[in-house]
Amino acid sequence: MKPKPFSALNHLTVPRATAPPCHSPTNVADATGADRAGCGSVSSPRTVDEHRAVVAALLGPAAATEDVPVGEALGRVLAADIAAAVSLPSFDNSAMDGYAVRASELAGATPDAPVVLPVATDIPAGRTDVPVLEPGTVHRIMTGAPLPPGADAVLPVEQTDGGVTRVSLHGAPEVGAFVRRAGEDVTAGDVVLEAGAVVGPAQVGVIAAVGAATVAVRRRPVVLVLSTGSELVEPGRPLRTGQIYESNGPMLAAAVTEAGGRAELLRFVPDDVEQFLDRLRERLAGRAPEDRVDLVLTSGGVSAGAYEVVKDAFTGRGVEFVKVAMQPGGPQGAGRVGELGGVAVVTLPGNPVSSHVSFEVFVRPALRAVLGHPSPERPMRTAVLGESWTSPKGRRQFRRGVLDADGTTVREVGTSGSHMLGALARAECLVVVPADVTDLRKGTPVEVWSLDR
Amino acid sequence: MKPKPFSALNHLTVPRATAPPCHSPTNVADATGADRAGCGSVSSPRTVDEHRAVVAALLGPAAATEDVPVGEALGRVLAADIAAAVSLPSFDNSAMDGYAVRASELAGATPDAPVVLPVATDIPAGRTDVPVLEPGTVHRIMTGAPLPPGADAVLPVEQTDGGVTRVSLHGAPEVGAFVRRAGEDVTAGDVVLEAGAVVGPAQVGVIAAVGAATVAVRRRPVVLVLSTGSELVEPGRPLRTGQIYESNGPMLAAAVTEAGGRAELLRFVPDDVEQFLDRLRERLAGRAPEDRVDLVLTSGGVSAGAYEVVKDAFTGRGVEFVKVAMQPGGPQGAGRVGELGGVAVVTLPGNPVSSHVSFEVFVRPALRAVLGHPSPERPMRTAVLGESWTSPKGRRQFRRGVLDADGTTVREVGTSGSHMLGALARAECLVVVPADVTDLRKGTPVEVWSLDR
Repeated sequence: MKPKPFSALNHLTVPRATAPPCHSPTNVADATGADRAGCGSVSSPRTVDEHRAVVAALLGPAAATEDVPVGEALGRVLAADIAAAVSLPSFDNSAMDGYAVRASELAGATPDAPVVLPVATDIPAGRTDVPVLEPGTVHRIMTGAPLPPGADAVLPVEQTDGGVTRVSLHGAPEVGAFVRRAGEDVTAGDVVLEAGAVVGPAQVGVIAAVGAATVAVRRRPVVLVLSTGSELVEPGRPLRTGQIYESNGPMLAAAVTEAGGRAELLRFVPDDVEQFLDRLRERLAGRAPEDRVDLVLTSGGVSAGAYEVVKDAFTGRGVEFVKVAMQPGGPQGAGRVGELGGVAVVTLPGNPVSSHVSFEVFVRPALRAVLGHPSPERPMRTAVLGESWTSPKGRRQFRRGVLDADGTTVREVGTSGSHMLGALARAECLVVVPADVTDLRKGTPVEVWSLDR
Repeated sequence: MKPKPFSALNHLTVPRATAPPCHSPTNVADATGADRAGCGSVSSPRTVDEHRAVVAALLGPAAATEDVPVGEALGRVLAADIAAAVSLPSFDNSAMDGYAVRASELAGATPDAPVVLPVATDIPAGRTDVPVLEPGTVHRIMTGAPLPPGADAVLPVEQTDGGVTRVSLHGAPEVGAFVRRAGEDVTAGDVVLEAGAVVGPAQVGVIAAVGAATVAVRRRPVVLVLSTGSELVEPGRPLRTGQIYESNGPMLAAAVTEAGGRAELLRFVPDDVEQFLDRLRERLAGRAPEDRVDLVLTSGGVSAGAYEVVKDAFTGRGVEFVKVAMQPGGPQGAGRVGELGGVAVVTLPGNPVSSHVSFEVFVRPALRAVLGHPSPERPMRTAVLGESWTSPKGRRQFRRGVLDADGTTVREVGTSGSHMLGALARAECLVVVPADVTDLRKGTPVEVWSLDR
């Protein structure tokens, strides 16, 4: 087979003769995918922020809404406010086990001078036919049980002899003592949670308590994660020199899941362009609307090499391949593929660290924004550099860091090489070095993105 | 039906006549469940730390180990170190698309004085039959492809004319330039992740990259969450006065899931003791070992009232019911029920806030410790109180707080009432007030537990 030429030489300098003119990096963010069809190259590197805008626009403004049972809502993002169907509490009730009384009848009662009254009835929690409290009587009442009409206080059992038919009451409660008033927590109609809230256990509790059986949440974007490359081998099989175990696929699928998406992994897609496209077409077809693929996410096959199936398959079909001014992660691509039903495609570079960092910088915030997440970005803060660094001019660098015990000083873990996966697995944060900074002295304040949540 | 007497009066003062003597609160932590059988009361409140030790001991030292495919390991805790089966990289390879060369043959090469050499072969990534680089030739090589024997540097394509059969090379690389050395990231046999590490996307990546197909993780404890109480109504149905929507069950199930356990929800268990025990027995029986229930978690039915199915069912059967010196969440219980195969039982109080706080204080850290989690506790730190508080003497208080924008000042959300679920759902943290502190001035430093992760 005749060797194919490098795609690098024309890719990095001038547009291909066969490709229509590209939109400039500054206006692609609001262009539709179709407008960018066939745009296979750019003449100058795109900034990180420009490519973030392109990927964010590609994934769209907001995911659709779906209803899920409250019990399955953990971790989901609310698509609408939750208004209380009932007040909390929904009726005046007792805060203690004891006796529902008229406070005025117990004025001056003490252990030495108790008031003795007949117990007219018993009100366990859940009793719905509660009779009026007649003057000169008490009702025995349990925590959470409805206060009978006529009663205005509860005397806890500890201040009584616990009598069942007659009771000796040796305390003088104030009006309202140990009574929880209807609506003192939540009034019916109140918004108890707002759209965009992330549902945790306490939120599940309040949603259930105000009577909602289901809850409207953002549909999780479905991401089809592709792994390609003839060097890739399935774990568990022996490696020959030249082969590596496939790791980007499961790593990116896990990253999609962690970001709130639904990942599907399509491993070992053939390197042949036609087979690659057929396999994709097959996988995207015939899906129910709720299972529609929102994003095809690839890694590898996009750099300047001569054997780049992702680039070969998507060039001229709607995906724009660009060089982004960052390290690691320069070669990026994004667009919509008309031949595949207009599906959104984001192509990440193949080095594991490049792939991971690119996901963090471009895909994760876009997925979380689509989900309506209140904080699409990783928590960012400033730390002090614990060592001196140099960084290449003209590229924003994302280095893997670990923080000291009090979280104020950051050091690099491993080196900045894009193949340093062992080091990445020990990293706690990404450290951002701006594109125009080349020398960082120990003690310099730097921006760090926490990878912990 | 004749009213049952309060259980409160003897419960809070002296042991029941029918119950064997109780272990003291300080040594129950290492007692077996059987030793505590029938211990239905204590004479003085137990401290929070004492009850934490009891619950932790009940759940045991460590969960069993199970193997899961790497792709399903996200969020799990490693049960064993991961040693690399292969080095990373496992062979010397190219860091760039370009040409594998002998550096000495390119000494002094510049754009004005290029060296022209024949291209002997092409090495795409994944090629496993790489021939030796003969003197006076180069191999075209792609990123990640194995460096041929004889080559000692890579010249990137950008410093060449990209030739396929002959190439003009106009750079003079140093020995080792753009070569990734075998093992420079990870050496075969190295521990790349330690037991106790939580598996995130980067960890999935490194586990897959070093060749592991499955990974040993801690089995998730199975927790059967029970909801009881005749006042409870399923969401979606109309409420009558006296009834409330059941919310503790789904809330606690979500909390178990969030803590890393496997929750099963058994709702609306009958209030009759025999039916209650039958229902539990039925649910616990006939399970495969991997589905064995590790903990039965109840809420409600444990206070001083006369109608307390949880207390009635488990008293004298191995569960010790105690008063813990805390607010909210005083009435707690824990033990093993011999009649139910010795299953561990933890009983939480029924008020939603009490239930949530009790889970946070007692159950969550115990579940995470069993999982071998490196940080079983919520992240704790100090904040400054933004208002003045009073707190009851002799009880450790856990109040629901929100932090200001910079996270340094905390204020209460809602009130300290244990039925304030609406406020709990907006809380960002728990604020801990020690048992001996009764007055806190604005500006006092307080311990806060972040609920965010």
